[in-house]
Amino acid sequence: RYGKAELENQVGAATGLAYTTAGGDTLTIEVALTPGSGKLTLTGKLGDVMKESAQAAFSYIRTRAEELNIDPEFNKKNDVHVHVPEGAVPKDGPSAGITMATALISALTEVPVKKEVGMTGEITLRGRVLPIGGLKEKSMSAHRAGLTHIIMPKENEKDLDDIPESVRKDLTFIPVSHLDEVLKHALVGKK
Amino acid sequence: RYGKAELENQVGAATGLAYTTAGGDTLTIEVALTPGSGKLTLTGKLGDVMKESAQAAFSYIRTRAEELNIDPEFNKKNDVHVHVPEGAVPKDGPSAGITMATALISALTEVPVKKEVGMTGEITLRGRVLPIGGLKEKSMSAHRAGLTHIIMPKENEKDLDDIPESVRKDLTFIPVSHLDEVLKHALVGKK
Amino acid sequence: RYGKAELENQVGAATGLAYTTAGGDTLTIEVALTPGSGKLTLTGKLGDVMKESAQAAFSYIRTRAEELNIDPEFNKKNDVHVHVPEGAVPKDGPSAGITMATALISALTEVPVKKEVGMTGEITLRGRVLPIGGLKEKSMSAHRAGLTHIIMPKENEKDLDDIPESVRKDLTFIPVSHLDEVLKHALVGKK
Amino acid sequence: RYGKAELENQVGAATGLAYTTAGGDTLTIEVALTPGSGKLTLTGKLGDVMKESAQAAFSYIRTRAEELNIDPEFNKKNDVHVHVPEGAVPKDGPSAGITMATALISALTEVPVKKEVGMTGEITLRGRVLPIGGLKEKSMSAHRAGLTHIIMPKENEKDLDDIPESVRKDLTFIPVSHLDEVLKHALVGKK
Amino acid sequence: RYGKAELENQVGAATGLAYTTAGGDTLTIEVALTPGSGKLTLTGKLGDVMKESAQAAFSYIRTRAEELNIDPEFNKKNDVHVHVPEGAVPKDGPSAGITMATALISALTEVPVKKEVGMTGEITLRGRVLPIGGLKEKSMSAHRAGLTHIIMPKENEKDLDDIPESVRKDLTFIPVSHLDEVLKHALVGKK
Amino acid sequence: RYGKAELENQVGAATGLAYTTAGGDTLTIEVALTPGSGKLTLTGKLGDVMKESAQAAFSYIRTRAEELNIDPEFNKKNDVHVHVPEGAVPKDGPSAGITMATALISALTEVPVKKEVGMTGEITLRGRVLPIGGLKEKSMSAHRAGLTHIIMPKENEKDLDDIPESVRKDLTFIPVSHLDEVLKHALVGKK
Ligand SMILES: [Ca+2]
Ligand SMILES: [Ca+2]
Ligand SMILES: [Ca+2]
Ligand SMILES: [Ca+2]
Ligand SMILES: [Ca+2]
Ligand SMILES: [Ca+2]
Ligand SMILES: [Ca+2]
Ligand SMILES: [Ca+2]
Ligand SMILES: [Ca+2]
Ligand SMILES: [Ca+2]
Ligand SMILES: [Ca+2]
Ligand SMILES: [Ca+2]
Repeated sequence: RYGKAELENQVGAATGLAYTTAGGDTLTIEVALTPGSGKLTLTGKLGDVMKESAQAAFSYIRTRAEELNIDPEFNKKNDVHVHVPEGAVPKDGPSAGITMATALISALTEVPVKKEVGMTGEITLRGRVLPIGGLKEKSMSAHRAGLTHIIMPKENEKDLDDIPESVRKDLTFIPVSHLDEVLKHALVGKK
Repeated sequence: RYGKAELENQVGAATGLAYTTAGGDTLTIEVALTPGSGKLTLTGKLGDVMKESAQAAFSYIRTRAEELNIDPEFNKKNDVHVHVPEGAVPKDGPSAGITMATALISALTEVPVKKEVGMTGEITLRGRVLPIGGLKEKSMSAHRAGLTHIIMPKENEKDLDDIPESVRKDLTFIPVSHLDEVLKHALVGKK
Repeated sequence: RYGKAELENQVGAATGLAYTTAGGDTLTIEVALTPGSGKLTLTGKLGDVMKESAQAAFSYIRTRAEELNIDPEFNKKNDVHVHVPEGAVPKDGPSAGITMATALISALTEVPVKKEVGMTGEITLRGRVLPIGGLKEKSMSAHRAGLTHIIMPKENEKDLDDIPESVRKDLTFIPVSHLDEVLKHALVGKK
Repeated sequence: RYGKAELENQVGAATGLAYTTAGGDTLTIEVALTPGSGKLTLTGKLGDVMKESAQAAFSYIRTRAEELNIDPEFNKKNDVHVHVPEGAVPKDGPSAGITMATALISALTEVPVKKEVGMTGEITLRGRVLPIGGLKEKSMSAHRAGLTHIIMPKENEKDLDDIPESVRKDLTFIPVSHLDEVLKHALVGKK
Repeated sequence: RYGKAELENQVGAATGLAYTTAGGDTLTIEVALTPGSGKLTLTGKLGDVMKESAQAAFSYIRTRAEELNIDPEFNKKNDVHVHVPEGAVPKDGPSAGITMATALISALTEVPVKKEVGMTGEITLRGRVLPIGGLKEKSMSAHRAGLTHIIMPKENEKDLDDIPESVRKDLTFIPVSHLDEVLKHALVGKK
Repeated sequence: RYGKAELENQVGAATGLAYTTAGGDTLTIEVALTPGSGKLTLTGKLGDVMKESAQAAFSYIRTRAEELNIDPEFNKKNDVHVHVPEGAVPKDGPSAGITMATALISALTEVPVKKEVGMTGEITLRGRVLPIGGLKEKSMSAHRAGLTHIIMPKENEKDLDDIPESVRKDLTFIPVSHLDEVLKHALVGKK
């Protein structure tokens, strides 16, 4: 069932949308926390831009730990591993930023991510959500995977009318400009 | 006898199945634990994807130590060395993930791995088993090596009918979707 | 709204002006401070010259902490992350030096940067401001983004007459030769 | 006399057999122990496979220290340097594995290696001896160097009949499948 | 005014002379000392030879701290940053060695460097000054920048007659063979 | 005078002989000891083989500290810097091994090296001296530099008759097979 929407809400995992030369695809961001001392490990054949994106998400969370209900000392007590299956497929770009942030926050707060939600958007150090490419292809792959809600950058609203009506009618699009809005729609029990 | 099934059940070693341009092959994952401070060493001319696969297996075990009957502090007290003979042969890809996890858990729990079992499957940070390529060739090499049980990803069941009947009749295929099932069938005294 | 002047004065973020083969562009330098031990992380697909520029800005601030009203021990208590969105766009060159210094000082003093100010200039270890290229193109992109004040190296004054009158009349140019002058004009409540 | 059998039994040095495009050659593995904290240094223009081979030998010894009469804490108290003269000649491959293990154990136990013995074989983390290539050429170079005993992998016995009779009659071949057998025949006073 | 002689004597900065395919140029070596633990940072797009030159200068100073009136413990209490503006211009070669040593010693002793002095010469670990290339071009660029005194290797005296008389008459050349002589002529209040 | 025999016996410096495509040359190995914690720094545009050669010399000295009248704890109390001027000239090969060992031992014991001695020879971890190439060219450059004694590997004695009589008659050749002999002839007051 890999590549399909999850059957249950997951803690420490979130569904992103990727855009490659071969079209759109879904990907899962997995986060594991282990007792440790602040080491951040990034695996899954990730390119440099995607790794930096994870670092930005991580720093944002560290600066906002208290507001996010995360132990501000978490970084001293844990190692953090972010992995993106499938391990042989190269992945790059900044558009998984908000997905990484969401998976990290889910793992650190133990609040599950809603299984029906896919998301795409670059994150900045201040939690802002920047526009991405390939919304059409990403939406179609989300649709194929059985997702029903797409969190996307507000600045990409102009691209919504490029998505085929047959796909658009089954999907709820949630335009956001800050990570706070992402979390409100992606985490169970928020809103 | 290298390249043949083991004569006895082994602690800290498990048999994987590889798929190269030259066809299928078996490989052995060996694990050594030494007093240390959490260093993970990976040798055997391993490519980056295979190394990341080992890291994913390792993190999974660290997050689930208690359920696996492993001292949660093992990582502070030991260095871990994963080696894959034959040292001159390049190896890569994520499909040894569950074999690495099994060998690591065998070493840490001192429970032997069944000598008749070969296995193939990518592992994720949550212990899920993802599909792999080359099941036909891998099965044929397992057969040649004298193995009788093949643990494989559930999502590869559709590939079973590609395996020649002469090979298939001698092998028991065990489709799995999570590492818990792998361990149940691979470790002595489980099930 | 990314690529536009900020709507409010920001702490820990400043607007720089970049010059690429595609013309001028604005960029935002973001700084995050987290409890830590002096690690400096630089992300945003930055080239080596830009990274060294950030190091020079950082060392300048460390040598002048007291005069700048910054805890001289800040480096022992914090990790510092400098990020430059958009993460997929390569960035290089020394001309963001004073912008990086300004964003760092804003983050460390919690004094906001004025939202209407853009800036460009290389910084040296002694806080001097060295000339840059592309002032014309940078000014035009600042104008497009809605900025009204441009801090620029005194040695570039000779380039002001190359800027189209239609742009020049809307902008206030502030020539500087030392970072002290930059801060006087860029930070809220200074001067 | 370099390239000839030693005149006396040596502590911390063992003679290996190499196989290059230019034919067979002997090489000496030298080990130096110094007060330190567990650093392993590998020099002599060694390729990655040969370095990994040294690491496998080293880990094997660490896991079996007690059975080998080695202080289990040796790794905390010493730095270990493995050097292979001649420093300008590139060396690679896994077949020096058992030679490295023997030189290391000799240095750690202060038991000399027999001067008339040459050896070749890959070592695994469990101390198994895997087959190697070039036994014929290696034997001829051992013969030229004045060695009289060759320790070799049991799985290479089939290659013995390729060695010219003129060489074979002067050499005693000792086929082994585990490092325990290597040590029994290579170290003075064992057996 | 960058590229011109300083208006005032500077602490922690000295003027070197560079020789590139484009002719001679002046460069400034800047040194910043910050509370730290002995880290040496080298920036300014420096090539490996120039970095090693800085390391040699640094080690020389560490071995001679007492004679130079420098706290022998300075290296435990400070981080040292050596930067060479302009950050986008690649720089290499050993001829800035004595300039780096002078700037470092000025920073560590807080004795200013004379603003009218330019210098060129490789430094060795024993403080010797080795010959350099391009004395003619370097002298002409020093002249253009308004410098009046040139410290140069004694072994380059034979190159003085290649310098145009119009330049030579305005410059005082000071041939040296050891760093002690450099400091005598470059630091304020020495001699 | 660089490239000429020293005018006085030196502590922490020794003269080696190099062999390049451009013929023979002399080179000086300089050693600086500073308070520190065992870091070995190698500079002078050295190739990997030459760096490994320095490491071998260094380890040999560490294992034999007591016999060499060196504080066995020197490595915990000092950083060691080995530099080979001229910094812009690439240098490689193992033949400076005994020169590096001699310079290191001179620095650590404060016994000077005789100014009239040049030397060449690979060193092993056990202090053995292995043969080198280019003895003829090296001898001629030593002669030009004004050296009178050449320490050389015993296995190179066969190359002595290739050296022109005009050079040979002015030089005393000292063939050696172990570093002990090198030190006996190179250090002042030994023998
Ligand atoms: Ca996929
Ligand atoms: Ca549209
Ligand atoms: Ca095989
Ligand atoms: Ca099928
Ligand atoms: Ca832009
Ligand atoms: Ca102009
Ligand atoms: Ca040889
Ligand atoms: Ca045969
Ligand atoms: Ca210039
Ligand atoms: Ca001349
Ligand atoms: Ca020379
Ligand atoms: Ca001859």
